[in-house]
This record gives sequence, C-alpha cells and structure tokens, in this order.
Amino acid sequence: MKLKSRNLNWLAGRPVVILGNEASKKLNVHVDERIAIRYKKKKIYAVVDIFPDLVGQNEIGLSNEISSMLQNKSGEDVDIGTAEMFLGARIVRKKMSGEKLSKEEIGLLVSEIANNNLTEAEIAYFVAAEKIRGLSHQEIVQLTEAMVKTGKKLDFGNEIIADKHCIGGIAGNRTTPIVVSICAAAGLKMPKSSSRAITSAAGTADTIETIANVELSLDEIKEVVKKTNACLVWGGSLGLAPSDDKIIHIERVLNLDVEPQLLASILSKKIAAGSNRILIDIPFGSGKMKTLSKAKSLGKKFKSIAKHFNVKVKPIYTHGIEPIGNGIGPVLEMKDVLSVLKNEATCPRDLKEKSILLAGTLMSMCGIFFAKSKARKILESGDAYKKFKEIINAQNKSNDFDKRVSKLKLAKYKKEIYAAKSGKIVEIGNSKINSMCRVLGTPETNSAGVYLHKHLENVLRGEKLMTLYSENEEKLEDALKFIKEFEPIRIN
Amino acid sequence: MKLKSRNLNWLAGRPVVILGNEASKKLNVHVDERIAIRYKKKKIYAVVDIFPDLVGQNEIGLSNEISSMLQNKSGEDVDIGTAEMFLGARIVRKKMSGEKLSKEEIGLLVSEIANNNLTEAEIAYFVAAEKIRGLSHQEIVQLTEAMVKTGKKLDFGNEIIADKHCIGGIAGNRTTPIVVSICAAAGLKMPKSSSRAITSAAGTADTIETIANVELSLDEIKEVVKKTNACLVWGGSLGLAPSDDKIIHIERVLNLDVEPQLLASILSKKIAAGSNRILIDIPFGSGKMKTLSKAKSLGKKFKSIAKHFNVKVKPIYTHGIEPIGNGIGPVLEMKDVLSVLKNEATCPRDLKEKSILLAGTLMSMCGIFFAKSKARKILESGDAYKKFKEIINAQNKSNDFDKRVSKLKLAKYKKEIYAAKSGKIVEIGNSKINSMCRVLGTPETNSAGVYLHKHLENVLRGEKLMTLYSENEEKLEDALKFIKEFEPIRIN
Repeated sequence: MKLKSRNLNWLAGRPVVILGNEASKKLNVHVDERIAIRYKKKKIYAVVDIFPDLVGQNEIGLSNEISSMLQNKSGEDVDIGTAEMFLGARIVRKKMSGEKLSKEEIGLLVSEIANNNLTEAEIAYFVAAEKIRGLSHQEIVQLTEAMVKTGKKLDFGNEIIADKHCIGGIAGNRTTPIVVSICAAAGLKMPKSSSRAITSAAGTADTIETIANVELSLDEIKEVVKKTNACLVWGGSLGLAPSDDKIIHIERVLNLDVEPQLLASILSKKIAAGSNRILIDIPFGSGKMKTLSKAKSLGKKFKSIAKHFNVKVKPIYTHGIEPIGNGIGPVLEMKDVLSVLKNEATCPRDLKEKSILLAGTLMSMCGIFFAKSKARKILESGDAYKKFKEIINAQNKSNDFDKRVSKLKLAKYKKEIYAAKSGKIVEIGNSKINSMCRVLGTPETNSAGVYLHKHLENVLRGEKLMTLYSENEEKLEDALKFIKEFEPIRIN
Repeated sequence: MKLKSRNLNWLAGRPVVILGNEASKKLNVHVDERIAIRYKKKKIYAVVDIFPDLVGQNEIGLSNEISSMLQNKSGEDVDIGTAEMFLGARIVRKKMSGEKLSKEEIGLLVSEIANNNLTEAEIAYFVAAEKIRGLSHQEIVQLTEAMVKTGKKLDFGNEIIADKHCIGGIAGNRTTPIVVSICAAAGLKMPKSSSRAITSAAGTADTIETIANVELSLDEIKEVVKKTNACLVWGGSLGLAPSDDKIIHIERVLNLDVEPQLLASILSKKIAAGSNRILIDIPFGSGKMKTLSKAKSLGKKFKSIAKHFNVKVKPIYTHGIEPIGNGIGPVLEMKDVLSVLKNEATCPRDLKEKSILLAGTLMSMCGIFFAKSKARKILESGDAYKKFKEIINAQNKSNDFDKRVSKLKLAKYKKEIYAAKSGKIVEIGNSKINSMCRVLGTPETNSAGVYLHKHLENVLRGEKLMTLYSENEEKLEDALKFIKEFEPIRIN
C-alpha cells in the first residue's frame, strides 16, 4: 500500500510513524503494532501511532528516527505493509514457552530493547516470562553482560571503586547521601548514581535534587569525582545499561518485582559505572523480602553472579519492618539527612546508625581496618558534612550550599494526625506510607510528604503520630480518606 | 503539577493525553504509562503519549475522550500527578501470580479492556498469565459471559441460528462462503460474521470483500438475513465482544495461541451473534493442533463451556496437514470459491468435499435428515451458487454480481516455481505458505498470493509447483529468497 511520506520534526525516542484512520483500517493495524516500510532498496520496521488530525488519509507521518533511516524526502511515496514477526519477538515467545535462551538470543533481545525496537507489549511479555518462568543462573549472567555491553561505561582504570545499593521497599531510608559522604571523607572513590522514585515517595536523586543539580554528563561526573572523590547524581540520563530503564518502566505497570531482572539490573548498572566493591542493602521483615531466609537467598545470588564479572559484592541484611528516618518525601528526607550530617541531637537515630553500619561495612570491604568506628568518627566530627557540602557545591559548580539549604521549604498545607487510642504501635506500613505520600503529591511536588513523630513504640491517646504535607488541599483530603481506608499506622 | 489544558480535536479511541518533554521528565512518566488528572472535583486517569511539537512545555493536550470526561475549557489549568495502580492492573497482577480470579474480577477486567482503560502492556501481562498460568473451566465460562455482556448483541428470538467456525492455521481453506450458501439454500438461518486475516494470507472477510461490501451495521445485517437467510460480513466493526478484539491484537504481537482466550473469544462472539448451533472445525496434523488427541481435548472444552450458555456445539476434526484449495490470498481464494460454487470440472476437490462435509454436518445439527447428500445436491444443482449471488447482491444493495466477479484481477507480476527434482511432495507448510503470501503483499494487496498447482502427491522434475503473484517486483524477489531459506514445499 503506497502512502505519501511526511517527515515530521519529531524526535519520538523510538521508530514511530503516524497513520490516519483509513490507512490503519486498511492495514488492519492498531496503536503500538508494527509495520514494514519499504523505500527504494530499504526495508525497515516502525511502530504505529494513529493520529488522524496530523496526517492526511493517504499520508504517513515519520518520526525523525524513521526518516533518518530511510533518507527519504518529505512527500515521496513509501510502500507500507504488515510486518512479519520480529526476531526479538520470536525470542520473547521462546522464553514465554519456558525454553532456555542462548547467549546470542539474550544479546540480541537486550540490544533490540536498548534500541527501542520492541514495543511495550513485547517487553511486557518478556517481563512476564521472566517473572513466571524464571531465568537460570547462566541466563542471568548473560543478561547482565548484555545489558552492560549495550550501554555507556565509566572507567576509572584499576582503582577500587565503592558503591552501595538498597533493593528498596522501605519508606524514608535515605542513607545514601550520608554513606557516600562518610566513605568519600575516608578516602574511598564513590561515583554514586541513583534512581528517581519508581513506586516510592522519593528516590535518592529526587532528594539530592532539592539542593543540587543531579543531571551530570559522564565527563562532569569524572570532574566532580576527581575533585571530591564522589558524586550523587541521577543515573537515568547516563546511558548505563539503557535496556534496563525500559524494562523497569514496564515492570512498574504492575509494580512487579522480577528477581532475575532485579539481579541483572542492579549489577549491570554498577558494573557499567566501574564499581568493583558493592554493598547491597537487603532489608527484610516487610516490603520486598518478608523473611531473612528469602533475603539471604537473594544475597547469595548477587554474590554468585557478581563473581563472573570480577566484582566483589557483599549483601547486608537490615531491619526492614518500618520506615527509616522521620521524613518521607524529597525535602523531608533531605532535612533528615542534613540533621544527621550536622549531628543535631534531634536527628533520627535509626537513620544515623544504619548509615554508620553501611559506611563501615563498605569501608571494610575496601581494606580499611576498624572501619565502623572510623565511620562514626568521620560522621560525628563533621568531616562527613564537610564532604557532603563539597560534593553538592561541585555538582552545582558554585559555593551556595548554605543558601540552597536555607531555601528548602515544606508544603503550604499541613495536617497533624494524633493517636486515637493509647497502646503500642505495631505497624507502620512501608508501602502504605509510600502510597499515602504519592496521594499527597510526591515525588513531583518535592515539598510534600509525611513526617513521622513516632516509630514502633508506645503512644498515649492524643499524641502526635504524623504530620502530612501537601501543596493542594484536595490531596490532603484524599490522604485523610486514605488513612481511614488503609490505616498505615496501627496501634494495639 | 499544574499544566494548561488544550483540548485537541482528537478522537483517540482511548483516554490519551499528550505531554511535552519537560513535563514528562518532571513526572517521570513514559509513553503508555498512566497519569492522574484532577480538575475541579474530578479525578480521572489517562495514558500518556509524548509529542513535543504538539504541545507547549507547560501544556497538556487532551484527547476528546479526556476532555469530555473532564468537561474542562481549553486553556484552563489541570493538576497532573502520577497514578496509583489501577484496579484492573491489580487483577492482572493477581492472575500473574497464579491465583484464581472471581467472577466480579473477571467482569471488571473485561469491561476495563472493552473501555480501553488498560494499556497494551497491561493486556500483554494478562495474556501472558492466561498462557502460562492457564484459566480454570469456571474462569473461562465467566470470561466468556463477561465478554458477551460488554458488547452488542444480535437477537433473532427463539429461532435456530446456525454458525460455523474454524480455529484456523490452514492456508486457503475458504469453506465458509460455500458452507453458508449451501446451508442458507437448505433453509437454515446463518448470519455469518468473519474476521480479517490475523496471521494468515486472507480471512473470510478479506476474501468476500473482493466482490462485496462486508462492513454492514447490525440493522443492515438483519435486513440481508431476512431477505436471503444469511450474510457474509466482517465481524470487527459490529461491537460484539469488543474486549476480544483488543486482546487479539496483543496476542498477535507474538502470534500466540492462548487456549482459554481462544475458547472464550470464539464462543462469546457466536453467543453475542445469537447463534445456538455451532460447528467448530478443528484441523489437526499441523498448524495449531499437531495431533488428533490435542484437537479432541480442545473440542471437548468447547462443548463443556458451551453447555453453560444453552448453545449446542459440535467439534469436527478435519485434515489439517496441508493447505485446502489451490489459491491462497483474497482474490485467489475467491476464484476457488466461485469455481466450486459453479461446479467447474477443474475446481479444487478438497475444498468442495470439505465444504459439503461441514455443511452437511451443520444441517444435521439443525434437524435436517440425510443432510450430507442434500448438501451435495444443493451445491451440484447450482442452488448454492444462486444463493451466494443473492447474498452478495443483498450486501451490495445492487444486482451487479457478475460485473464484480468479472473485475477480479490477479496481481501484475507473477513467477512460476518448478519442481527441482522428481519425487513425492511430503510437506506443504501451512504457516510457511501464509508467511510467504504476506511477503508477497497479502492481505493488504488482495490480488497477491500463491496458486498451488500440486498438493501432497508425486511430481516430476520441472513440473509446475506454484505461481507467485505480487504487485511489486521487490516483494517477488523477497518471496524467492523466502523459498530458498524456508522451503515451504518439500519433495523427498
């Protein structure tokens, strides 16, 4: 079927074309399905979007991705047909049926995903197959390797590069800025990249962004690390293991935890970032790992896969039964972090102690003796705070740390929640607290969130349990409804 | 996050909004993910498309579906946030984990799909779960019921309504127009709706469309059936079991055969069309059912599910080891059908005999005695051909049957393929022949396809095996490459 091409000035991020109603009906294709486009001797594949107002009945609108592959002139005819099944799709189908994939198949699949050649539905099928059928140890190693290969890399030569990662699921728990500051002050090199919130109230990148630029290029990162030993940046724009980002977006659709993908995702990003001493924080007791034995089984897998890449991984199993720290939401968490770094008497002890534990363990992995007491000393002497300022200023290319901190502001509307009865707080649900924060507007609204006045402890009727923050009164109302329905804090 | 709304004049077919790069980055959402939109007291969900050229940085473009739900004025601010997980998505997640769904959950899921509220990725997760985890008998019954409920219905009162369906997988095999003509001539009422090609070279609707209008409204169908006892229309635009169409598009991404979905799909469409005597043709030996025992197991399931709906189903197990008929492709298949109906001596015997068998069996299900010999008589006397003309003319609201038939034309370019050696033809691969037809341009190009000069029989070196037809020389070249690589016809 011939259609007149129209080169839209549209960088779609994937090879998309726009069809009108008539053409899509004739081809019997729907949004997100694939067609073949033939022009001169070339034949390429594109994903369909349908948008009648943009193109005429006999036209096809081409994204920049497509027109640059075809090298056509706008207005020339192209020939459109239905697409036979993609090789990438055939590999997904094989995994769906429970067969083992070869190294070559995994490599091809990952590169197709990285190049945006698989549709959302195809990636969802792969994730479902990973989740239900599982991957073998060998397949996970090959997946990790393929994910590293398809992306950019940071290279610090033969140096020891420290990293930490938490598998998530715990509200608050903003240890990273503190751990990085302590370790960097202790002389470790730690180019830390973090994610934004996926299902939580805030990611480390969202929190750091309240006072610093987190979108650095690879060259800028090298510069900052050279100056300060460390950085605290957003990993999303660096192009490390790019297939992973796409898979994560699809996992997120159902908030799935897919273990083989989790292992490959975390390790591939760390390896691509040049890390070779990696501490993996695996909280247990609620959230993703209900029991210690499940947490340990995951930890063992991390170790055994990392071996293939000449990287030392140590899993650490931590208290995951309630949120860590008091503030939950980007600005609230930053305030907790600053309070710990500044050694304020009122700082959240749980966040402080966990950060010291993690920093000490990581320092010890990197050959430092008496590491835990050194970590404490670095934090309590103010050296870690000094290092944190250095890193933030280096990322901002300025010296206005104090000014930025002074501008941190909580949301306009707030509401205090009091204990309805006396008793023992037996549950502060991590995922419920996270969901409530999202109702309040986090992470888009960084000033929103929840401040916990209590942890798992005894309370008297009428004592303050938490304060809710939002920039929008209706969202505050919704959060109150949420509390009634889901009871995020339970007193017995 | 506040954005200025812009009501686009865009009937997207699902609740979609357009964001620019900045807004999508801030919200950390990607194409096909869901956001929550708040306007006055309303809060609704929309799927994201990203198209920077269409909207400004602080704007959000709304499809008609969204603006009619919000009742906003273009230019007013709306509040955008990330969406908590949909109830529909939670149900999909439950099935992914292998749990059984309740009647209410299945009902809700189906209505969400029918209303376009699930994204492609979410539907893919559901299909994957159906495929790998399976559905119980009870779940399939409930799925069928929910699919009937969400769509339109044809109602012919208490009459006997005959129908036939082939589960597919066999190239050619265009029995439907012949069976319908025989049965209608025998006095049965048979309002037949068919699909277009999904993975094959042609569907019945594509074939009929070479000489007739197949897109009739429900009222027009009733009119044609009243006049002629039957019709031969495209089912896709009738709105019977609409969720099914969406699920089929997603299955098609990987050409999956998902048995529970197949059962529910076929039965729900037939029940919604008012049919109560249904013959299910299940070819075995290649294609979808490799063995007779697999075919019989499927046939039994059809029967046991149909019982719940007071509908009589008879499975018939037919020869599925090679294509049926000689022509494969819409026009080529129509020529075969006409040749059988006109009792030409050169007509494909296999197509004729299979059509008589199916028509006879269906007539017998509807209470006609000596049905098979009656069916043969109706066909060979020319009564079936007369009936076919009537139906086609009624659908076209004209009397130009002969003129339309005389205009049937095969594609401009053709290429004959000869046997490279003498021997016995041991394989004519159904799916390979279908794929090759798609390479040649079917079903979009209805004049393209393959004519088989031989079936599974002895040949001499140099005898004609098949003729390829295409409107495009390059596609003909591609088909020759396909033959070399995949050897659709194998001689031993």
